[in-house]
Amino acid sequence: MSTDGPCQRKLYNYFRSSASYRVRIALAHKGLSYDYVPVNIMPKVSEQKDAAYKALNPQMRIPFYRDHAVSISQSPAILEYLEECFPDPPLLPGDHAGRALVRQMAALVGCDIHPLNNLSVLTYLKRDLGADDAAVDAWYSHWITQGFQALETLAAASDMRGTFLYGDSPTLADVYLVPQMWNARRFNVSLEAFPLLTAIDAAACALPAFADAAPEVQPDTPEEMRA
Amino acid sequence: MSTDGPCQRKLYNYFRSSASYRVRIALAHKGLSYDYVPVNIMPKVSEQKDAAYKALNPQMRIPFYRDHAVSISQSPAILEYLEECFPDPPLLPGDHAGRALVRQMAALVGCDIHPLNNLSVLTYLKRDLGADDAAVDAWYSHWITQGFQALETLAAASDMRGTFLYGDSPTLADVYLVPQMWNARRFNVSLEAFPLLTAIDAAACALPAFADAAPEVQPDTPEEMRA
Repeated sequence: MSTDGPCQRKLYNYFRSSASYRVRIALAHKGLSYDYVPVNIMPKVSEQKDAAYKALNPQMRIPFYRDHAVSISQSPAILEYLEECFPDPPLLPGDHAGRALVRQMAALVGCDIHPLNNLSVLTYLKRDLGADDAAVDAWYSHWITQGFQALETLAAASDMRGTFLYGDSPTLADVYLVPQMWNARRFNVSLEAFPLLTAIDAAACALPAFADAAPEVQPDTPEEMRA
Repeated sequence: MSTDGPCQRKLYNYFRSSASYRVRIALAHKGLSYDYVPVNIMPKVSEQKDAAYKALNPQMRIPFYRDHAVSISQSPAILEYLEECFPDPPLLPGDHAGRALVRQMAALVGCDIHPLNNLSVLTYLKRDLGADDAAVDAWYSHWITQGFQALETLAAASDMRGTFLYGDSPTLADVYLVPQMWNARRFNVSLEAFPLLTAIDAAACALPAFADAAPEVQPDTPEEMRA
C-alpha cells in the first residue's frame, strides 16, 4: 500500500504545537521516517515563506502531512491515516469497544480541551475581547482542568486501564494526553487532582517514541528550550 | 458483531445539539433504530434527573450512545464506532486517501469550529469575561466564517467533490457540515461567501436520513420550533 523510502514523508510542524507533537509520536511509534519541515506559527515570519506554505496548504495550519499519496492537515485525520496504512505497531485496540473508548478519550482532549487553547483563540481573547494575561491564563487553565477531570474520572472507572490509558501499550489516547500534559505544565496548570493522568504521562514519556517526539528535542527547538 | 433488535440502542441527546444531530444522521443513514432519550442541556432541569444522568455519564455531555457493547460519549468516537460496526451503507470512502480527506473535512468542523461555539464556551465568555451579546455573536460568527472559508477552499480544490463534499454519496464530511450550517443560519451568520457548502448542504438536507435527523422534527423539539 505504502512504501517506506527515505524522505518520502514530510511533516510540516512546529516544535511546540501540540497537534504536531501528536503526529510526531505516532510516526516515531510506527518507526516511520520523515522530513521535518519547521513552520514557525508564532511571530510573523517572512512573507515569502508564508506565501510558499499557503500555496501548499491554504489553511496554513499545522501539522500538515504529505506523502506519495496524500496531503492532509488536521491531526485526527493524519493519525487515523497512519493507523490505517501502518497498523503495526498499533495505536488502536483490535476490538470495536476498545477502539471506541480510546477514540472517546482522544476526542475529549482533541475536541473539549485543545481547540479552546489554540494560539488563534488566545489571540482573539486578547485582541478582540480585551482579556488581560490573568484572564487568558484562567481561561487556559479552566478548559484543561475541566477536561482532565472528565478524563481522570473516565480512566479511574475503566477496567481497561493499565500502564497507559488503555492497556499496557500506548494508544491514541496517550498520544493525545501527553502533549496536553506538556501544555498544562507549560502554563502552570495544577495537575495535583490528576494522579492517574500524571502516572500515565510519565510512563509514556519514558518510551523512546514519546521522548523523541518531545518539544525539547526538535530541529526547530530554540537553544534555550533544549532539554 | 452487533444485532439490530428494537430499542437496543439508546442515544442521549438534545434536538438542537449539533454533535447530537451528527449522530442522528449517521444512525438514520445506516438504517439503525434507537431509543431517543432527550437530555435538556439548556436550563437546569430537576436535580434528580441530573443525578441519574451523571451516574450513567459522568461528563454529562451529549451525545451519549449506548448499546449492548459500549457506552460512549464524544461524537467522533461514536461515528467511527458506527462506521466500523455497520459499514454499509458507508460514510467513509474505501481508500486511504479518500478516508483521510473526508476525516480532514470532518475535523475542520469538529475541531476548528464547533468546540469554540459550544454552549459552555459562550457561557464562559458572558459570565467570566463579561462579553455582551454583540461580542458573543461576533465570536460565534468569526469561528464559523474562518472555518467555512477553509472548507470552501478545500472543496473547491478537490477533484473528488461531487454532489457532496466527497463524491455523490454522503460521507462523514457532510454529516459534520450540515449541523454546522444549521447553527450558522440559527445565529444569522452570512453564508454568501460559501456557495459550494450551501449547495452541498441543500443536497444533503434533501436526503431522508438528513431530513429525519433535523432539529425541527425530534421528539424534544418545542412545538414553536417544529417545521
